[in-house]
Amino acid sequence: MKLPQDFEFAGVACGIKHDPRKKDVALILSRRAAVGAGVYTQNIVVAAPVVLDRQRTPAADIRAVVVNSGNANACTGQRGMQDAQAMSRQTAELCGLSAGQVLVMSTGIIGEFLPMEKITSGITAARADLAPASEGFLNASQAILTSDRGPKTAERSLTLGGRSIQLSAMAKGAGMIGPNMATMLAVITTDAALAVDDAQRLLQTAADKSFNCISVEGHTSTNDSMVLLANGAAGGEPLAGKELTVFQETLEALCVELAKMIPDDGEGASHLIEIEVLGCRTIGEARQIAKCVAQSALVKTAVTGCDPNWGRIVSAAGYAGVDFAADEVALTVNGFSLYQDGAPVAFDAATVSDSMRQHRETKIKLTVGSGPALALHWTSDLTIDYVRFNSEYHT
Amino acid sequence: MKLPQDFEFAGVACGIKHDPRKKDVALILSRRAAVGAGVYTQNIVVAAPVVLDRQRTPAADIRAVVVNSGNANACTGQRGMQDAQAMSRQTAELCGLSAGQVLVMSTGIIGEFLPMEKITSGITAARADLAPASEGFLNASQAILTSDRGPKTAERSLTLGGRSIQLSAMAKGAGMIGPNMATMLAVITTDAALAVDDAQRLLQTAADKSFNCISVEGHTSTNDSMVLLANGAAGGEPLAGKELTVFQETLEALCVELAKMIPDDGEGASHLIEIEVLGCRTIGEARQIAKCVAQSALVKTAVTGCDPNWGRIVSAAGYAGVDFAADEVALTVNGFSLYQDGAPVAFDAATVSDSMRQHRETKIKLTVGSGPALALHWTSDLTIDYVRFNSEYHT
Repeated sequence: MKLPQDFEFAGVACGIKHDPRKKDVALILSRRAAVGAGVYTQNIVVAAPVVLDRQRTPAADIRAVVVNSGNANACTGQRGMQDAQAMSRQTAELCGLSAGQVLVMSTGIIGEFLPMEKITSGITAARADLAPASEGFLNASQAILTSDRGPKTAERSLTLGGRSIQLSAMAKGAGMIGPNMATMLAVITTDAALAVDDAQRLLQTAADKSFNCISVEGHTSTNDSMVLLANGAAGGEPLAGKELTVFQETLEALCVELAKMIPDDGEGASHLIEIEVLGCRTIGEARQIAKCVAQSALVKTAVTGCDPNWGRIVSAAGYAGVDFAADEVALTVNGFSLYQDGAPVAFDAATVSDSMRQHRETKIKLTVGSGPALALHWTSDLTIDYVRFNSEYHT
Repeated sequence: MKLPQDFEFAGVACGIKHDPRKKDVALILSRRAAVGAGVYTQNIVVAAPVVLDRQRTPAADIRAVVVNSGNANACTGQRGMQDAQAMSRQTAELCGLSAGQVLVMSTGIIGEFLPMEKITSGITAARADLAPASEGFLNASQAILTSDRGPKTAERSLTLGGRSIQLSAMAKGAGMIGPNMATMLAVITTDAALAVDDAQRLLQTAADKSFNCISVEGHTSTNDSMVLLANGAAGGEPLAGKELTVFQETLEALCVELAKMIPDDGEGASHLIEIEVLGCRTIGEARQIAKCVAQSALVKTAVTGCDPNWGRIVSAAGYAGVDFAADEVALTVNGFSLYQDGAPVAFDAATVSDSMRQHRETKIKLTVGSGPALALHWTSDLTIDYVRFNSEYHT
């Protein structure tokens, strides 16, 4: 894996997780001042590290991100805030930074205080292990996981104005963790030079097209966080004009690739479902319909059963709160036309069902009119294993 | 079962359902002009009978409701509209009415045309069977069912201004039908005298507190319909003032009793969940939070597993889109305090879990501030049987 210049990574095990061999502290350091941007959960109930990072981004001089898994430091009140601050302070002291230059992320069980002795030893070990190497990046990408089946990483290389630019990103999320709560984290590092305002705007736009367009069961966590560090080591002035646009498109494609890994790894999932809604007046309306279809338990269980059940999809669109003409609705599933001009069309159910059985991804394409706007949403299907996993656990 | 005066009921089997012994056509007749009010699905995609009934209510002179189960007459285009009109016309001819005095309801599989020969024979048989008797009422309440485990009926008797007034109601709904789509129907008959505007207003208010506060999986159907027929046979002028208020309270209690039967009978449900949200600024906000908690798959599966998982409940409230102070949140489950002043409290998880295991109903009480408004919502838990039922069926 290629890494952006002047970044170092580490991931270590310090015993927060039940299995002491599992890595649970990640550290990401930029050797030079990096522009830091962040997008965070919209839940009213937010974890302590989210409160901290919100205050610290966007900024022109972020140097490190410290992450722990196994404990979300959420619903932990004043002591939780002190613990999050201690994490950033300890990281800063070990790396010769000020605490305000360090972002903090936590993911795992909620309502329990962080085991600060373990965390401190973890940060110390991670500091010692820091390296500008793929191994460090992979270790970090493992240390942020909870119920994920494996690391989620993505990268892009591009040349802008004769300069080689690298983006390398990691994420985590599978629906449930700790096992107490869904949590999604992502860290994107790049050596591109970006202005602070551009970094924040690009990250928000990318989030709106990627991580804000995925769901497993639709439960927004208290810890969702996504940050971008751009340290400019590739050289040159902050990107602008056409170069910034190319960078933005690259960032968005990277985020979509990474985001789709989360519902694909959704707890118990047997299908990744892609929902494309077309023909809307606005992107907002298209997203609203796509999300509503994605969150229907009837649509999800139909896909689980490889059933091309157009009635469930069309009726879910119908209660999304968006006005459209029912007689203009058209639907395809995996390219097969099931519904046209607001009425079912004849199709061979066995053929469509076979297609759904043979592909991990089911593609639903729903047209609701002739407007210019479209949106994509990715979700998991709903299986017996999801219910078993989430009902058999006891706090 | 006591019945309101001057109403007749029948329910017969005409072969729409696979099992020819199962009743599938219900007829309800008022011997005199009845005020008719209706509340219908908010889905954009609506079934033909809903289009018809919306045009016909509220009205001062409704005489009959004809219902078929086994076929929803939804997504059936122009032919579906003609079939719904034919159902009302045939009923009208057999009963000596005009078609506009007849309301029509359908529930069952969507996207298939009504088998009109069977329907016609069913309406004819029901007409012949009409009687002002409990048996007829019970037959009708069976003929409107689909995947329900049994009839859902409720009644109230009250005396207003020296006059005995009776309300008798039936409903259906369990989440899925046909088996293609959730559908909820309710018919309330009363011999009270009501003004048309009052009838419509009271029914809408009652729906907002009952049938609009329940969910199984949250998928709004194309056929949801609830109608009230008030034929004034109890005598007197239309109810007004304090008497109207008493009638309204009675109607609302009746609707709540009937509505709760639906999630209690939710497909695969092992618990009925009652969610009470208090301390809001407005009822709308309280309902929004209650609905959001009710629709969380993580909350539902926690109840399935008898797990007092406060984190899932509190975080679901947090993404309802309603602003509240996280540090004022308090939560009880089955009367046990789990969360207070925005932080978890010590509790014996085994005791609370035992309580959830021993009761069919789990009571969640969530306070989010000190405002005056509250709301109730009832839902089913989410079980392996729900997923099995809804994923193993094939169109």
